[in-house]
Amino acid sequence: MSSALPPSIEKLIESLQILPGVGQKTAARLAFFLLRSPESTRDKLGLAILNATKNLLKCEVCGHFSESPLCDICQDEKRLSSEICVIEDSLDLLAIEKTRTFRGRYHVLGGALAPLDGIGPDDLRINELIERLTSDNVQELIFATNPTLEGEATAALLQRKCAPFPHIKITRLARGIPVGSDVEYTDEVTLARAFDNRTIF
Amino acid sequence: MSSALPPSIEKLIESLQILPGVGQKTAARLAFFLLRSPESTRDKLGLAILNATKNLLKCEVCGHFSESPLCDICQDEKRLSSEICVIEDSLDLLAIEKTRTFRGRYHVLGGALAPLDGIGPDDLRINELIERLTSDNVQELIFATNPTLEGEATAALLQRKCAPFPHIKITRLARGIPVGSDVEYTDEVTLARAFDNRTIF
Repeated sequence: MSSALPPSIEKLIESLQILPGVGQKTAARLAFFLLRSPESTRDKLGLAILNATKNLLKCEVCGHFSESPLCDICQDEKRLSSEICVIEDSLDLLAIEKTRTFRGRYHVLGGALAPLDGIGPDDLRINELIERLTSDNVQELIFATNPTLEGEATAALLQRKCAPFPHIKITRLARGIPVGSDVEYTDEVTLARAFDNRTIF
Repeated sequence: MSSALPPSIEKLIESLQILPGVGQKTAARLAFFLLRSPESTRDKLGLAILNATKNLLKCEVCGHFSESPLCDICQDEKRLSSEICVIEDSLDLLAIEKTRTFRGRYHVLGGALAPLDGIGPDDLRINELIERLTSDNVQELIFATNPTLEGEATAALLQRKCAPFPHIKITRLARGIPVGSDVEYTDEVTLARAFDNRTIF
């Protein structure tokens, strides 16, 4: 294999393998796809990757990516400062924004408790959240951590940390059968939760 | 969505969508993965993409990618010039090289006949192949085009073009059941071929 490809392509294939789920074979296919693409498209991607974190900051309030000290959502006067949705990372924010349902603001924790991976309470933006509760006029805190062991543990910790603020309503996303899925294929834990939390039809 | 992300990340997500099989959701996941990666890794990938075709040529003889007028394989004295394996594109060369079975040289056609996509005989490096047959001491031509309609049509055309060289043996890759697969799941055409070409046990 060593001499089968010129160094520039070898390097491209090797670099593409840093992407999640991309092994040598997929990397080679991606590389040849890029080689066949117009130079302008390739340059656009290359530059976008090089400049990804240029000017990139984290919002001082919510911790979301931003190019200014305050992110667009925290700057937006129309977003309710009385509701804060607590999420693990910015990808969750994207997913929630797509629903166009939530009009409040966010707090990005930067992960979830994972003792085995060495992620403890001090690695998450929990103190920053408590600070917001003290200063802002927060009325509701919506926990939207992932429905996993780590996410649930994080939510439980947050709940304890919020004990000094009994006037703040704490809610979390409903558990239930996903829209468009099959009852038959729903796992038993989810189905049990869907029964417990059934709503008036 | 418009204001949910800073422009640099929006641009990265948009650019990643040029990759085959990458939609908006995968692009967002790849982008956040890259944002979490060390800057050096990201820069390496960005530069590899930008420099992919810098100094990149096609081998004057076989048409494979190369950084010099002759590719490493065509320059390699140890590779038999008497056997030429004809392939559709350079990815096929990689796959064949991995087997460490073939010690001859290659000829990259640059695709296969596909009239519906506007790819005719003149778009493939067929004349270059005939030229090699005239000048080099070629004894065997191995057709390794894909076992698809397009690949078979290309092989048939090549065979006609090789009529003036009756001394050259023309072979093609065996059809049969893939190693490690199930007879039960093999499609009927492949299974019929495997019967026709059965070998002494």
